[in-house]
Amino acid sequence: MELPLIIDLDGKQSLQVQIHNQILDLILSGSLENGCRLPSSRDLSDQLDVSRNTIKGAFDKLLEEGYIESRAGSGTYVSTILPEQTISVEEKNDQQKSIKNERPIDLEEKTKGNEERLYKRDVSDILYDFQLERTDPNSFPVKTWRRLINDRLGSAKANMTKYGEPIGHPELRRAIATRLGSTRGMVIDPDQIIILTGIQQGLNIVSHLLVRKGSKVVLEAPGYRGASYLFENYGADLVPVPVDEHGVMIDKLPSTHTDIAFITPSRQFPLCATLSVERRKGLINWAEKVGAYILEVDYDSDFRYEGSPLPAIKSFDDQNSVIYLSSFSKSIGPGLRIGYMVVPPELVEHAKSSKVLLDYGLPWLDQVVLTDFLTTGSFDNYLKRLRRLYISRRDCLVDTLKEKFGTDVDLKGTDCGTHLIWRLPESTTDAITLQKKMVEQQVGVYTLDHHTVSNPEMASDNEQIVMLGYAAIEKDNIREGVCRIAARFEGF
Amino acid sequence: MELPLIIDLDGKQSLQVQIHNQILDLILSGSLENGCRLPSSRDLSDQLDVSRNTIKGAFDKLLEEGYIESRAGSGTYVSTILPEQTISVEEKNDQQKSIKNERPIDLEEKTKGNEERLYKRDVSDILYDFQLERTDPNSFPVKTWRRLINDRLGSAKANMTKYGEPIGHPELRRAIATRLGSTRGMVIDPDQIIILTGIQQGLNIVSHLLVRKGSKVVLEAPGYRGASYLFENYGADLVPVPVDEHGVMIDKLPSTHTDIAFITPSRQFPLCATLSVERRKGLINWAEKVGAYILEVDYDSDFRYEGSPLPAIKSFDDQNSVIYLSSFSKSIGPGLRIGYMVVPPELVEHAKSSKVLLDYGLPWLDQVVLTDFLTTGSFDNYLKRLRRLYISRRDCLVDTLKEKFGTDVDLKGTDCGTHLIWRLPESTTDAITLQKKMVEQQVGVYTLDHHTVSNPEMASDNEQIVMLGYAAIEKDNIREGVCRIAARFEGF
Repeated sequence: MELPLIIDLDGKQSLQVQIHNQILDLILSGSLENGCRLPSSRDLSDQLDVSRNTIKGAFDKLLEEGYIESRAGSGTYVSTILPEQTISVEEKNDQQKSIKNERPIDLEEKTKGNEERLYKRDVSDILYDFQLERTDPNSFPVKTWRRLINDRLGSAKANMTKYGEPIGHPELRRAIATRLGSTRGMVIDPDQIIILTGIQQGLNIVSHLLVRKGSKVVLEAPGYRGASYLFENYGADLVPVPVDEHGVMIDKLPSTHTDIAFITPSRQFPLCATLSVERRKGLINWAEKVGAYILEVDYDSDFRYEGSPLPAIKSFDDQNSVIYLSSFSKSIGPGLRIGYMVVPPELVEHAKSSKVLLDYGLPWLDQVVLTDFLTTGSFDNYLKRLRRLYISRRDCLVDTLKEKFGTDVDLKGTDCGTHLIWRLPESTTDAITLQKKMVEQQVGVYTLDHHTVSNPEMASDNEQIVMLGYAAIEKDNIREGVCRIAARFEGF
Repeated sequence: MELPLIIDLDGKQSLQVQIHNQILDLILSGSLENGCRLPSSRDLSDQLDVSRNTIKGAFDKLLEEGYIESRAGSGTYVSTILPEQTISVEEKNDQQKSIKNERPIDLEEKTKGNEERLYKRDVSDILYDFQLERTDPNSFPVKTWRRLINDRLGSAKANMTKYGEPIGHPELRRAIATRLGSTRGMVIDPDQIIILTGIQQGLNIVSHLLVRKGSKVVLEAPGYRGASYLFENYGADLVPVPVDEHGVMIDKLPSTHTDIAFITPSRQFPLCATLSVERRKGLINWAEKVGAYILEVDYDSDFRYEGSPLPAIKSFDDQNSVIYLSSFSKSIGPGLRIGYMVVPPELVEHAKSSKVLLDYGLPWLDQVVLTDFLTTGSFDNYLKRLRRLYISRRDCLVDTLKEKFGTDVDLKGTDCGTHLIWRLPESTTDAITLQKKMVEQQVGVYTLDHHTVSNPEMASDNEQIVMLGYAAIEKDNIREGVCRIAARFEGF
């Protein structure tokens, strides 16, 4: 199929722009009908004697604008509904008066505050990104994953066509129970485990069971905003408790009845402290005294570089006070969307009921592939490789920071996890200013102003705290990023 | 590895029982340690000169009991934690006094009623099962699915290791918007679509936005219990409205302010009526009058066998009163766990915030594979095949019922969907008696007493209603099942 395009090699506009504009005209005029197939970029390239990249560039822009769509294995087509046609839907909607006068008065209240989570700007002009919420893409074990998927697809016919157990596939629950026994010191029954779409779903279940208007919920401060928003939404009274370099300060916990304490002991979010054994035991005692449940959120415990991993709070839990939440987002990757909770026996039936009110379980295939990944030892091998990689990246980051900013550069949280804390000297600049200026240098650093952080003001020197993630940045880029920071701020 | 087993060929116990018991002894005594690898069934078969099936039978029993576990690609192992050891965990737990005195007083209230959903008995001795909640296993397009997965795995490294959009993958939302335009007459923006873990999650979002204590929620009666439980949990006052053969009876709708009306217009659940066009328009008028949102739940609209599919209520919705919910559970299969909602523009931002409070989105791979399945035309081809199959099964079921019970046998809902309604004459027996007796004949039939049905008493002759699903039962079995029913109840 040949398109009626005329290229002016001497024209003011680039070839890519000319091609884009002319194809757009053909679409808008109806010459190229909605839904019809376009010639391939190769064919157009041949027809116009223009590089295929130029054609692809024009196509990319039309794709982005919504005028064309790409169908896997089939080619490129004019969109079935053009943006113009959806705009008229919007205009139509704007014109209609809203008739819903009696919507719940707290609707705004109940849904505020998540905009930044929703509208995370894809700042694609950042080249040296110390981002926090990724795992290393090159380490994702795609060959193993492909093999495991293909093996399990052998039983897809039976399993894709029926409902599984809403609380999670029994093989996966068993595999996790086994693993928690050997790695976190928890002796639990698989029946205490519920498979979740992520830690956030676990927070919903816990809140559904335990949080009502006025319930007291202790939060680490600074802490994890996803949790504070959710508990607030359920009507909780939030009780922020400060954190120091040994984790949450248990002597600052309230002495009266508390419903829940949200604790990240392996690696405090966001300040990276590990809760000492002494404080873990102290928490259990406190929970017994005030009748609280401890919500132990172990989101990032697979990467410890110094010392042995401390036993989970739940492993000391002889009072059944601890609800344990974790996920595979920080180890395998956030694209998998699998987490789990371990519930004290007295809450098991209630938690199962809560889960079923939320949804009817996770997809079959993802659960069983994860099961095989765990039980075949592949996960352990993968973690070993990843730990070595993260250690070398951490070392690169720490060394370069020391080289550029002095051996007494103030760093914390280097012993585990995938980001560290850098406290800027107050004589230099503050974290937010650094962040803004470094965007111009195509470097991404993060502050306690991040959308995932609640109560940033409760960290001492919170305005000086920079968070640098190293899970998903190559060593060359680590060095270049730190060098650019140093170059931008001579006189440190 | 050889196990110290002694087989008595002349013994009273079968070889399988002897082998099972002796392996169990070795495990319990500690001779076979927890976690150690067992010889393969082939090796044991060679060692003992006993058939491999006999060994497998013994292994299966040990597997079921929890003493051994199978690891894909790796073999069979003694369980890491034996059942005995978890029993002692349970005993320990029983002995501990509960210290949680001040749990929310409505905890029992909030979590009752889901037991049947959780404990659906796997009645594996049913051979002729007119089950309701499956799609046809043999039709699941595993070759296509495998190909699409393997294609997409090419970009797994980047996509598995980062967070996607919580409201759903943009390609999938666009594909669904396109499809809804051509198949359901809805002109909508992909931005109005949120991808869900299933319809149930959509009900949670709607309730989070619109249901408070005392909110009025209209439900079809009989109707879908998953919805009634959920709305109750949010504090709604439920208003059941009866259903006839044209769907919900709109003249019985309340005339005062109502918050939500839960409607299944394509195929009323469970009585299979299709809501007439006249009533669809009437619903829109009613919603405007009383300030209600219509929750249009289109769970089973892909299989219509007579006449054209009626346009969705939302296609008449010029007042932005309709929230549309659907899923792929009844078409592709419940194991996929993907659904979606279409939200009126004024609620879009609120709905997105609600979604993010629940979880951070669906797995990447499942979404993009579904996208490709939709956009490559594979879904349409698959639906065509499935419709042909379901029509032939429906015909077989209807014909056999007519043959056995007379041409005036009282059947409804044969024009669409994957189950029909059979009203038993009162002179014969009632549905629950029939169901119980037929279990003994290894035949599975279903009644309005099913765990998914609310307000069964509001169907006239509700005790006479039998539901027969035909999505997942072969024609031979359909015939045999109906014959067994007829044989059991001579004198019909």
